[in-house]
Amino acid sequence: MSAIAIVYFSASGHTHLMAEAIAVGVQQAGHKAELLRITGDQITDGRWQDNAMMATLTAADGIVFGSPTYMGGVAGQFKAFIDAASEAWFAQLWKDKIAAGFTHSSSLSGDKQGTLIYLAVNAAQHAMLWLNVGDMPSQYVGKDDGVNRLGSFMGVMGQSPLAMDGADAQLDAGDRLTCVNFGQRLAEAAERWG
Amino acid sequence: MSAIAIVYFSASGHTHLMAEAIAVGVQQAGHKAELLRITGDQITDGRWQDNAMMATLTAADGIVFGSPTYMGGVAGQFKAFIDAASEAWFAQLWKDKIAAGFTHSSSLSGDKQGTLIYLAVNAAQHAMLWLNVGDMPSQYVGKDDGVNRLGSFMGVMGQSPLAMDGADAQLDAGDRLTCVNFGQRLAEAAERWG
Amino acid sequence: MSAIAIVYFSASGHTHLMAEAIAVGVQQAGHKAELLRITGDQITDGRWQDNAMMATLTAADGIVFGSPTYMGGVAGQFKAFIDAASEAWFAQLWKDKIAAGFTHSSSLSGDKQGTLIYLAVNAAQHAMLWLNVGDMPSQYVGKDDGVNRLGSFMGVMGQSPLAMDGADAQLDAGDRLTCVNFGQRLAEAAERWG
Amino acid sequence: MSAIAIVYFSASGHTHLMAEAIAVGVQQAGHKAELLRITGDQITDGRWQDNAMMATLTAADGIVFGSPTYMGGVAGQFKAFIDAASEAWFAQLWKDKIAAGFTHSSSLSGDKQGTLIYLAVNAAQHAMLWLNVGDMPSQYVGKDDGVNRLGSFMGVMGQSPLAMDGADAQLDAGDRLTCVNFGQRLAEAAERWG
Repeated sequence: MSAIAIVYFSASGHTHLMAEAIAVGVQQAGHKAELLRITGDQITDGRWQDNAMMATLTAADGIVFGSPTYMGGVAGQFKAFIDAASEAWFAQLWKDKIAAGFTHSSSLSGDKQGTLIYLAVNAAQHAMLWLNVGDMPSQYVGKDDGVNRLGSFMGVMGQSPLAMDGADAQLDAGDRLTCVNFGQRLAEAAERWG
Repeated sequence: MSAIAIVYFSASGHTHLMAEAIAVGVQQAGHKAELLRITGDQITDGRWQDNAMMATLTAADGIVFGSPTYMGGVAGQFKAFIDAASEAWFAQLWKDKIAAGFTHSSSLSGDKQGTLIYLAVNAAQHAMLWLNVGDMPSQYVGKDDGVNRLGSFMGVMGQSPLAMDGADAQLDAGDRLTCVNFGQRLAEAAERWG
Repeated sequence: MSAIAIVYFSASGHTHLMAEAIAVGVQQAGHKAELLRITGDQITDGRWQDNAMMATLTAADGIVFGSPTYMGGVAGQFKAFIDAASEAWFAQLWKDKIAAGFTHSSSLSGDKQGTLIYLAVNAAQHAMLWLNVGDMPSQYVGKDDGVNRLGSFMGVMGQSPLAMDGADAQLDAGDRLTCVNFGQRLAEAAERWG
Repeated sequence: MSAIAIVYFSASGHTHLMAEAIAVGVQQAGHKAELLRITGDQITDGRWQDNAMMATLTAADGIVFGSPTYMGGVAGQFKAFIDAASEAWFAQLWKDKIAAGFTHSSSLSGDKQGTLIYLAVNAAQHAMLWLNVGDMPSQYVGKDDGVNRLGSFMGVMGQSPLAMDGADAQLDAGDRLTCVNFGQRLAEAAERWG
């Protein structure tokens, strides 16, 4: 059984719902998902620290990185976490783990691709193996289930109109299914990679 | 009066319609637009050549670069043109001209942002000044005219479902208006830059 | 006289030296440079705040954004500042200002291009005008002054070997000259843009 | 035994030398390397075609994509090949193969990172698994063999001063060793992935 860590930041709640849906997919494939949510109070004087969370990440078989797209990139809080992981980087502790990414914003396109590319660049520094999305956009393959409706390949994208944050946040049904499918793909890839 | 060259490749016809709409905006602002369409038959043994087109580009006050997003980047035919412009680059003939970009694909998001970033990277090598989109997404500012409906900032994005190419190609009304607005913005920026 | 704000984060001191060199160039061109250094203690519970600094930025004619490249992107502290500027973004307060970027790392290439691209993406959201580097790599034009020795176009890159941080930090002479030249270019562009 | 296809374009000869060095690494690991060189004469009226080469790619266990960095991106000739592979993409024939990338330019930094990112974006559309570089920069780990001397993570970078093309082209010794190591890593990853 593989352990997939899902480390993410979420303010409005949408990225959190994506993380949960990916976890569902991992579990449906018979593997273990660990949800690790980055929060602002882990940051002191601009530096993020949470040793227990870092240990869980280093023990995992695969790591999925998730952040809303803020101003064309990952949230500042998530970047603080990434910078703190430079210790793991210098020792190459995450080398050859499976890595992947997901993001959310309120625009149909927006600058979400840039966020996914950045997550892949960060994983490249860690010498991880990057897993891309396995589902073609549903409209290309004659389906209407909304899977990969936005047409994203380097990671999973979610999109919701402005408003309804927090407890009321909702995820598009197609985006949710894309996340579940990707969780399954991720767990199976980690298992196959061994 | 400023002269804006719109150099682009289009196979399905959608990028061509975007180019025409940008030209309309340039003209509405009282300036001159020159449509320069890259074609496959300008390429011999992998190399693009059209000296007259290159001279028009070098004489222009601003250059807008446009290509459909194919496999996450500009069309190969358009890249052949860009490579041929390395002569203009080495002599820095386009230095300090206004530059901008636009792209089209069939996905809502797809990898269009990557294409626009690439067009900006190419313009950076030419030491041009990059003009970004001036319109916020309409839904953010309480409008429903579809302007910047996809949420793009580094250049103009257009999106159309698969099918209906060539003579039947149609452009989303909001995307068309985004192009017209951007043409005006571009001409005014070239005039202000002087 | 134009006012150029140079907003940056620096931990090891190298990015600070780049900021100072850009300021020298701005002043040599007869314009006003304002050095605004982002620090970790401006961040509380993951959020950056400094109203006076934000007011200075909004009043400037041009803004240069600078950050070391950490894990392939801007420093977390700098991203916290960028996220806080989403208020200025929503009101488009920085629209049509001149923007530019610079970064530093210890590798010759590293992932510095990604950082510069990100800074340009952020400026695009603000609808700013992006100014690219004006100097060709010195080795291409038969010079040996080290100007643009790394071959960067979308912004200025600096590189220094690991070690010697803080008070002992030193900048490569060619990189410093690249910064001074770019400061001049920036001030002149802001003046021309008017 | 795994089969690794190395598909690349090279004009000056440097990228060709990188391809050969990667092939050496693949063979040293006991696996099969197939060198597939894209040429301009495969392009007619702007479109690339070589059915035999495409069949070899589809039969391979892993594909490494290589191109010099021209004007901040892959060579136009290589993009023509990538566009022709959209048929393989639409049928997802390369799904779940191992993918990787390499590039060369005459600048220390230049825009090589952008080229590698683009190669990864293209592989993402094919739903391939992206393998990153496994060697830390030698100077970070107290070695002086020049391995990963430029500090690249998403793929292998080579750099050579202008001049001496074709038969006289030479590769930096550290860059060559980086390629050989990466060839081994690639073959072993393809074997492990199975």
